[in-house]
Amino acid sequence: MQFVANNRPVLGIRREDYNRWEARAPLSPAHVQKLVDRGVKVLVQPASKRAYSGKEYQAAGAHIREDLSEASVILGVKTVPPEELLPNKTYAFFSHTIKAQEANMPMLDAILEKNIRIFDYEMMLDEAGVSPVAGAMGRLAGISGMINILHAMGTRLLALGNYTPFLRIGPTHSYRNIEMCRQAVRDCGYDLALGRMPESMGPLTFLFTGSGYVSKGAQEMLKELPVQFVDPTELRDVCASGDTTRVYAAVLRRHHHLRQRDSGQYDEKEYTAHPDRYVSTFAQQFAPYVSCLVNGMYWPPTAPRLLTNADLQGLLGNNATDNGGPGEVLGCPRLPHRLIAVSDISADEGGSLEFMTRCTSMDSQFEVSDGTKSVPGIMGDGVVVCSVDNLPAQLPREATDIFGDQLLPYVWEMLHSMAEVPFESQAHLFCRTLQDATIASNGKLRPKYEYISELRASKNKLQ
Amino acid sequence: MQFVANNRPVLGIRREDYNRWEARAPLSPAHVQKLVDRGVKVLVQPASKRAYSGKEYQAAGAHIREDLSEASVILGVKTVPPEELLPNKTYAFFSHTIKAQEANMPMLDAILEKNIRIFDYEMMLDEAGVSPVAGAMGRLAGISGMINILHAMGTRLLALGNYTPFLRIGPTHSYRNIEMCRQAVRDCGYDLALGRMPESMGPLTFLFTGSGYVSKGAQEMLKELPVQFVDPTELRDVCASGDTTRVYAAVLRRHHHLRQRDSGQYDEKEYTAHPDRYVSTFAQQFAPYVSCLVNGMYWPPTAPRLLTNADLQGLLGNNATDNGGPGEVLGCPRLPHRLIAVSDISADEGGSLEFMTRCTSMDSQFEVSDGTKSVPGIMGDGVVVCSVDNLPAQLPREATDIFGDQLLPYVWEMLHSMAEVPFESQAHLFCRTLQDATIASNGKLRPKYEYISELRASKNKLQ
Repeated sequence: MQFVANNRPVLGIRREDYNRWEARAPLSPAHVQKLVDRGVKVLVQPASKRAYSGKEYQAAGAHIREDLSEASVILGVKTVPPEELLPNKTYAFFSHTIKAQEANMPMLDAILEKNIRIFDYEMMLDEAGVSPVAGAMGRLAGISGMINILHAMGTRLLALGNYTPFLRIGPTHSYRNIEMCRQAVRDCGYDLALGRMPESMGPLTFLFTGSGYVSKGAQEMLKELPVQFVDPTELRDVCASGDTTRVYAAVLRRHHHLRQRDSGQYDEKEYTAHPDRYVSTFAQQFAPYVSCLVNGMYWPPTAPRLLTNADLQGLLGNNATDNGGPGEVLGCPRLPHRLIAVSDISADEGGSLEFMTRCTSMDSQFEVSDGTKSVPGIMGDGVVVCSVDNLPAQLPREATDIFGDQLLPYVWEMLHSMAEVPFESQAHLFCRTLQDATIASNGKLRPKYEYISELRASKNKLQ
Repeated sequence: MQFVANNRPVLGIRREDYNRWEARAPLSPAHVQKLVDRGVKVLVQPASKRAYSGKEYQAAGAHIREDLSEASVILGVKTVPPEELLPNKTYAFFSHTIKAQEANMPMLDAILEKNIRIFDYEMMLDEAGVSPVAGAMGRLAGISGMINILHAMGTRLLALGNYTPFLRIGPTHSYRNIEMCRQAVRDCGYDLALGRMPESMGPLTFLFTGSGYVSKGAQEMLKELPVQFVDPTELRDVCASGDTTRVYAAVLRRHHHLRQRDSGQYDEKEYTAHPDRYVSTFAQQFAPYVSCLVNGMYWPPTAPRLLTNADLQGLLGNNATDNGGPGEVLGCPRLPHRLIAVSDISADEGGSLEFMTRCTSMDSQFEVSDGTKSVPGIMGDGVVVCSVDNLPAQLPREATDIFGDQLLPYVWEMLHSMAEVPFESQAHLFCRTLQDATIASNGKLRPKYEYISELRASKNKLQ
């Protein structure tokens, strides 16, 4: 495909408004170059906080311009403030509207009022029913969340009297890309393998929840340490008699800890329909043997929590858990309890972890929670929690590269979109993936998404 | 020299009590190995927070033992709590007593009461009048303090709307050694050289105070960036018209900013004797053109401050300083003022920088000061300040290696020391350096240090 002069589409790339740490863009200069080479005119809003500089986009042939009104299609990463939406345009970004999320309903109203056509990345599903854009970002969130918590553990364990090789791992944003994160973990792993952990600490254990891209991304990083994956039921044993030249990890699946209140059994189908009928045995059965919890699971609001505040208090109580180390020696303190750190990559405020009530952010990544309060930093009694909510933005250049790699194949088709024309008369120009990801067009929700109105109505009724 | 069975000296290595972040030791396992190979028995107190583990010392032939009473000579890094001092022993550590520092006088009293002989590293001077141990640690403090503030600048500049390659630099303790720090700075420097700084920022300028090991260590790291050193008087020009593919740096010497109140001239000899007769022109003449101040100078308490609180308020005031960037563009904010960051490596509370009233620490390295208050973290209005006070401990393994390299040559002689024997009858066993570094022995201050008693008396009188 080569666009020619009288049919030259104009693509806009927004400046992100989500928060001050959002340094990603939907396309990198290299992607822009490909578009420009085929005759697309690309406008990029100026943004000093973007990891790729304006000069780099310019060198790729883009025009740096505040006013995107010449563009017919505008790409972003995160949600757009309603007043910033230009009427009669085609937009693509993560709209976070498909569960009728309250915070984004004013934006959805503006989309409808302004006759905007919107493609939602989260709903751009491949043959397997997976969104490659969302999946790639999930993996990055997992990677980033894992590095952050390993970094926290280094300082936290030293604060508790134990120098460990985890000190060798910095915050995610101090690495240029995933490969540099990986090398830092390997550098730490080497010292671990050499037995350079204090003898007063038993072997460390990691538990992952969730089995999607997020959890797998986090595991991908941990696997650079000398790690042995075990069944969650084996954690108790490895705490007692594991090897300190490695760490242990387990992946918690629903069937491990969810029990129907009456039958005491787990039934996938019933749980999916009625999570409220279930309780979790996690706090009693598994959590006492977990040094670092990496939470990457989806949590339906009626499901039992993974850990309540009371659960956490129990886990931090005197002698509630065994750190697995030998008896105390002066100068070589035992850890006060086994649970040291929690990375809540799900970043679900007041969700599966009751004590995580407000996400942390890049300037103050950690807080210490004891089930009654949370104090910023890594000092004090409790467990260190990291719950930064836009984790991929900590690796913004590579995140942008990966984002664009997944997105670009669809951009060619998006460029045919004319928001003023009825969707039906344009549908044939779009692949199934884009058709299904069209939340709204021509002032109306697309039939597939009409349920959002009903969901809003029923939500409002409840209030 | 080879010690034999009936004359086998016993050396002790203390566990440090200074603070929880002190992970250094005076000798590494490699140094211990050399001692053991020559017949010295080495006892090492257990300490999980030490960067070299007990196992590593054991592998080098040391005995891990809480009780050091068998040792005749005991080495430490930092000061020892009075109650921990064992009587009739020879100790070596940084005593910080030679200015009659109030906090350490109870320790000095205990040293005298317990007939302890003490060699002070700070006073172990070579031919040039320099302490190689103190010098090496000063260099490390400079390196560490420079890395910390570059790390802070990355996050701070992003918080101010500017993504910069400084984000690529982690906190010092996330690097294994100086070489890894250096590589991180070079990685950042490469992007700088490629012009990947936001256009809304002018060129950044660094100013170093002091000309000793601390300042030189900090400069050593900055020199891994594309940097051009200029005279402090040229900073104003480079702010206005410098190149943004590099940074600029200047070293402030006394003659640049100190002026006799009456004559307006600088006289080195008079200033050294009467610093109180001088004022500093730094705040007006140089500070308005400094992005990052790296303070590594010695400040006599009667000297004029480098920056008062009022000076800082002036520097942060609206339009008080020019950031040197072009006019404001939406999405590309100018910096609010030129002064962004201060690394107070001198860590002199209430010293040359009036707003630095309490040192920061490894768990919370930064605060933002506006001349009226200081808030932990990197957010808010003001300047980001790092004032961690035991900076070399952020690179504890290499610090220990370097410490021991400087110390070991003297340890052989120290091993002859018998604290119960009058110093005079042993003096011939020690080189001039050790003789001159002996603060106290046999219950008395050595003649060279008797002035400490008088200094204490005169200090007490003033109170």
